[in-house]
Amino acid sequence: MQKLKQKIIEEGRVIGTTILKVDSFLNHQIDPQFTLEMGRDLASRFTGEGITKVLTVEASGIAVALSTGLALGVPVVFAKKGRASTQNSKVYTSEIFSFTRQESVGIYVSGRFLGPGDTVLIVDDFLAHGEALRGMVEIVRQAGCRLAGVGIAIEKEFQGGGKKLRDQGIRIESLAAIRSMSEENIEFL
Amino acid sequence: MQKLKQKIIEEGRVIGTTILKVDSFLNHQIDPQFTLEMGRDLASRFTGEGITKVLTVEASGIAVALSTGLALGVPVVFAKKGRASTQNSKVYTSEIFSFTRQESVGIYVSGRFLGPGDTVLIVDDFLAHGEALRGMVEIVRQAGCRLAGVGIAIEKEFQGGGKKLRDQGIRIESLAAIRSMSEENIEFL
Repeated sequence: MQKLKQKIIEEGRVIGTTILKVDSFLNHQIDPQFTLEMGRDLASRFTGEGITKVLTVEASGIAVALSTGLALGVPVVFAKKGRASTQNSKVYTSEIFSFTRQESVGIYVSGRFLGPGDTVLIVDDFLAHGEALRGMVEIVRQAGCRLAGVGIAIEKEFQGGGKKLRDQGIRIESLAAIRSMSEENIEFL
Repeated sequence: MQKLKQKIIEEGRVIGTTILKVDSFLNHQIDPQFTLEMGRDLASRFTGEGITKVLTVEASGIAVALSTGLALGVPVVFAKKGRASTQNSKVYTSEIFSFTRQESVGIYVSGRFLGPGDTVLIVDDFLAHGEALRGMVEIVRQAGCRLAGVGIAIEKEFQGGGKKLRDQGIRIESLAAIRSMSEENIEFL
């Protein structure tokens, strides 16, 4: 998506060689109209897949996921972080490692919102090491859903998360994939 | 908003007399089209106020805030939870108490996204004790913004948070305000 690449170049701030801050339009401040466009673009790549649910994880994936769900006309489920509180009902859980925070965090989805009848599109703002996605894929499998694929706003391809998931046969669509970056330059795939 | 009240009655689950679970369309699973309608309704109540930013706090406020920002044509800023990481730039912070989790949590907004030139509409999914709102109002004041008011999807009026803020002269608009509730009955204002 040309417009996203342009915004990354104009507004993104690279710290070292692995951290890309795009908090002016995606991670802290959100540009609503542009977020809608990203959602529309992601949705268009999965037309005809019979998607019934979009799945993301709180918090910064929610805006892009909502926009994608809106374009597809399906509900959006966001996995919650932490431990599921005392519940009587079924819960799907996974554990993911946050490289940013250097700690493991549990994520969970209520069994009421995903099930064997669902075809799921996972959406997230970033793909780096792929930990959040691995956790969501695990939840989709626990729930017995069909996984249509993964839609990502920004993939940092050089961190390898995308390769790990594609090697499992998972289809991943990224609106902007970064091959390498430094404080001086960002190179897209 | 009649449709929201209807959805609360049909899909909401009251636990005890203070907890209302609306996770089928607002807190865990999101109905994108309906969220857009809520945002449009909130925005319409603040037309002519010259709003330049919508402010919310992660995570479940993001969807309604995004929809409101979209309708107003302004950016949405979501306060982050936790401590601001090592930053060179200015940060506005507050401390709020979560009655659900029974613990204090810090929230912060980067100084790059709010300033004296801004007129802010605070948006959140729930208003109960008003702790999250109090924290966001504090951040708006630290940033020197004008506060246009507060837009809320569901206000649990009996928990008193709305009264505390209105007593300070803050305008609050709620799409559905609950006077009292039990497992058998929900009474709206």
